[in-house]
Amino acid sequence: MPYNFPVKDVQFLLNHSADFDQVRATGAFEDLSDDFLEAVLEEAGKFANDILAPLNRISDQQGARLENGRVITTPGFKEAYKQYVEAGWNSVAFPEEWGGQNLPNSVALAVVDAMQGACISFAMGTMLTTAAVKALLAFGTEEQKRLYLGKLTTAEWSGTMNLSEPQAGSDLATIKTKATPNGDGTYNIKGQKIWISYGDHDMADNIVHLVLARLPDAPEGTRGISMFLVPKFRVDSDGNIGEHNDVKVVSIEEKLGQHGSPTCVMAYGDNDQCIGTLVGKENEGLKNMFVMMNAARIDVGMQAASVGEASFQKALEYALDRPQGRKFGVKAGPATPIWNHPDVRRNLYTMKALTDASKAICFANMVAYDLARRSPDPDVARAAKEREELLTPISKAFSSDRALETTNIGIQVHGGMGYVEETGAAQFFRDVRICTIYEGTNGIQGIDLIGRKLGMGSGKLAYDFIDEAMANADAAIATGDADLKRAGERMKLEAKSLRQNTEWMVSAMQTNPEEGLAGGTPYLDQFGYIAGGHYLLKGAISALEAKKQDPSRADYFDSRIHIASFYCDNLLPRASGLAPAVTAGAQTVEPVEPTLLSA
Amino acid sequence: MPYNFPVKDVQFLLNHSADFDQVRATGAFEDLSDDFLEAVLEEAGKFANDILAPLNRISDQQGARLENGRVITTPGFKEAYKQYVEAGWNSVAFPEEWGGQNLPNSVALAVVDAMQGACISFAMGTMLTTAAVKALLAFGTEEQKRLYLGKLTTAEWSGTMNLSEPQAGSDLATIKTKATPNGDGTYNIKGQKIWISYGDHDMADNIVHLVLARLPDAPEGTRGISMFLVPKFRVDSDGNIGEHNDVKVVSIEEKLGQHGSPTCVMAYGDNDQCIGTLVGKENEGLKNMFVMMNAARIDVGMQAASVGEASFQKALEYALDRPQGRKFGVKAGPATPIWNHPDVRRNLYTMKALTDASKAICFANMVAYDLARRSPDPDVARAAKEREELLTPISKAFSSDRALETTNIGIQVHGGMGYVEETGAAQFFRDVRICTIYEGTNGIQGIDLIGRKLGMGSGKLAYDFIDEAMANADAAIATGDADLKRAGERMKLEAKSLRQNTEWMVSAMQTNPEEGLAGGTPYLDQFGYIAGGHYLLKGAISALEAKKQDPSRADYFDSRIHIASFYCDNLLPRASGLAPAVTAGAQTVEPVEPTLLSA
Repeated sequence: MPYNFPVKDVQFLLNHSADFDQVRATGAFEDLSDDFLEAVLEEAGKFANDILAPLNRISDQQGARLENGRVITTPGFKEAYKQYVEAGWNSVAFPEEWGGQNLPNSVALAVVDAMQGACISFAMGTMLTTAAVKALLAFGTEEQKRLYLGKLTTAEWSGTMNLSEPQAGSDLATIKTKATPNGDGTYNIKGQKIWISYGDHDMADNIVHLVLARLPDAPEGTRGISMFLVPKFRVDSDGNIGEHNDVKVVSIEEKLGQHGSPTCVMAYGDNDQCIGTLVGKENEGLKNMFVMMNAARIDVGMQAASVGEASFQKALEYALDRPQGRKFGVKAGPATPIWNHPDVRRNLYTMKALTDASKAICFANMVAYDLARRSPDPDVARAAKEREELLTPISKAFSSDRALETTNIGIQVHGGMGYVEETGAAQFFRDVRICTIYEGTNGIQGIDLIGRKLGMGSGKLAYDFIDEAMANADAAIATGDADLKRAGERMKLEAKSLRQNTEWMVSAMQTNPEEGLAGGTPYLDQFGYIAGGHYLLKGAISALEAKKQDPSRADYFDSRIHIASFYCDNLLPRASGLAPAVTAGAQTVEPVEPTLLSA
Repeated sequence: MPYNFPVKDVQFLLNHSADFDQVRATGAFEDLSDDFLEAVLEEAGKFANDILAPLNRISDQQGARLENGRVITTPGFKEAYKQYVEAGWNSVAFPEEWGGQNLPNSVALAVVDAMQGACISFAMGTMLTTAAVKALLAFGTEEQKRLYLGKLTTAEWSGTMNLSEPQAGSDLATIKTKATPNGDGTYNIKGQKIWISYGDHDMADNIVHLVLARLPDAPEGTRGISMFLVPKFRVDSDGNIGEHNDVKVVSIEEKLGQHGSPTCVMAYGDNDQCIGTLVGKENEGLKNMFVMMNAARIDVGMQAASVGEASFQKALEYALDRPQGRKFGVKAGPATPIWNHPDVRRNLYTMKALTDASKAICFANMVAYDLARRSPDPDVARAAKEREELLTPISKAFSSDRALETTNIGIQVHGGMGYVEETGAAQFFRDVRICTIYEGTNGIQGIDLIGRKLGMGSGKLAYDFIDEAMANADAAIATGDADLKRAGERMKLEAKSLRQNTEWMVSAMQTNPEEGLAGGTPYLDQFGYIAGGHYLLKGAISALEAKKQDPSRADYFDSRIHIASFYCDNLLPRASGLAPAVTAGAQTVEPVEPTLLSA
């Protein structure tokens, strides 16, 4: 059984967990009927299953390589990319004006889910093109839009994000790349960038690099950084591709995973001939980059969960197939598929529950993203913007941490076979490992959550969420269903504890940040488990109702309720296990003389 | 800073956490003074640091390979192995009669710790030789001992364990390899074995395979399995090496990690000329194999923790060295080493605390192993045997699961650099991944704990342990030290919860095993966090006393107290997060129609 994008599950998560109806209600989109949604998901699934999934294994074995200064991608990538562009998968959520389809970003996220689960190292490149489009839509000049946007929305040309330098990773304040005005409105760019995904490749006719650099006499630190558009091939005023810009791939990294995705060291202006144009205002480059970075963080959370789903499918297939052992205490007789062992089912349910909880958070996050931009009701839009802000670091960090656990269990279900590369279970584990690091490490996400996000209205964003989770838990209890009642009660317990920790954290960050910062990671984790449980439980309550409406699908809805109930019984309580670490405070991590730590 | 075996830490764990004084008190060993212990650890450390550690990276890049039917090991392994044999590192705990040094197994475990942390794929082979020695000491005939033991104790010849076959992994009941009597006391062995670590290599003159096989007309299932000694090269009655036995390496696995350790598919008797001799009684092979398997499980727990330590050292070095960011809210100025960020220290302390908690459990386990065999007091020996039995699955599973977390954090501390293979952080993560699988998957360890171990005296082994943990927690509170008081109170809370879950589990396994089996893994995890906390806390209480005795080392003892306190504040509470999953019962993992799980 190869990878199979789970259309029904995704549709369920959008409709029942993530309030997709609210996106429908904006009236900002033409047809968002369930039939239409299903058709889009089915088509995306077909593309992912049939075109991308078969490339996943080969992308690991024959990864991208650098040859004579050019990156050659995995055999088959080029052809698949052409089909991806032609089918219009990249332009789902972009304006019709630029060749897009004007669908919600939440629908585009479902397409991302399909592609990433099939072959993350292929889909990785398209994610960055998407980010570049969003940046140009928001900050590009009319000229930049005219010359580049049409090509980028379709992904006929691809995009990159160039932030890091050897001395500047999480800390972009120390960026050194220079941009010197040429006097004709263009800039001379000079500097080295690292960690540039798809910095070069052979699948698109041109590559549009968005590069952070400093103007002469720009202020020090993060407030002196500007964003520049630097094409691989220069583009004339009619949009025709001209000569090669002074942009070079220095090397590509040998990585733990995602071998198919070239991670490049890029040199701009080695010969002082690298020409770029300013995007947005001077010195606002970092701020503007974060506009697209935030959307990219939701994508990263989703891509991690997508790989989790793929890993789950593989493990499930193995468990149904592999005979080993008998019922406890039975010493002889034929072996039974390991699926029949309770501990193996625990493993499998854990994988699926963590995956769907993660996806539910990401979808809810992107629904909020859509509402914030498209709701005609300013109150709805404002509240949605807050929810988007709150959930973004959680989507990114919680989903990627859980995907690592999921793919790890995927290996474990295979036993010794999981450790053998041929099986493919280990590839998911290796491929997904980077998701906790790029687009801001998960530690940075924790700081974003307790610093910036809790800082907005002294915790208001979190309290609003907790109120919603509490109300939903009451609704679960009110259903009278035994499983949902138990789940609701557990949720109330955990949400209450989260409220207490939030109060502590808001106060700590205001009075003594070191106190709060010591607990950022466990606070984000605690929040994540509760957010995941909240959206699954919401889905389960809705499924109970849907069962009545459509008894023919009762078995499917029951399976969703079971996953939510499993999560609340087994995984949600982990939040309690994290809570004490949040408030342990600065003293718990006070510096110890390092040479005494390991002696 | 290359790998540095932490002599002081290991000595501390033995003396202050693991009751090594009780081994001294047996009087079964000559000099076990602290000076002597330190000298052994220093020497082992030197060998590990200077000879093995430099091979670790190369073992990953130039792993074992099969050439013309022979396994060629990593360049440098052969020379290191010769030195390992000559230095006598393999024979530490074996009887002087067979060339050993008659030191406690708990000291040998410290030597294992040194070697595994330096280069796991090298040390892996010696672990199996050790296991083979233990099997022959217990069950070998006088002739087998005379011909093989002397060579195996020194590791001049190496040993292997041959259990799995393609259809028989966790489920050894279905082993098919056959052993037919030749009429002269030898047996003709025929069958295929998989997952044979160091099934072939070029470092020793001979390889002694211990092979599970079935005699003609043996009963079905696990009670019809016998153990055979099958040398790679036949050995004449004077112990001279003769012709090649009919033993062949079919292939070696391409694995996620431990590339330096050849994992072989072995064919015995392809030409019906494979001669072996019976070890132990007919049909008792599996039972006897488990005698050495249990000791090997403690070794696996330790090897995982050893890699955790290596990963910690690398991450610590990076954190002290890498400037990135400033204090929270400070927007400009020079970057500070990331060690100064509270979240990074949380990561590092988590790594060290989990590593030392794991090592403490393993040492306490092996101290019990020593006492069970060498204490002159039968009551002490009996209680120690029970403790050994209880802790073995925890040593194996908890340590390996935590080492995976530790090495994962090791990558995370490095940021993007952690994902690049050149750094080496990822190698620890890949190498250690197998430890949760081999020598019985961690799921199997959970079943062993709740089935066999809780079954002994209806939970007596666990209750005795919990009583001890409670008493120790009271002692922590009684110290009056604020940190230890808080730690003791948390421990009492967690130990109480463990007692409740143990009562539930004992009853469930007696009345309806499916109920209990659904919670085996979380029960083991819960137990593991409490056991780790118990031994660290014990060490901390003792350190408080030691500080008074030796004020010159107060800083070091304080650092140990800090690690224990960090663990109890931040990691021990995870036990609370696991507790509800233990008793969620069979219903929580009841089978759902698999096609509905991902749709």
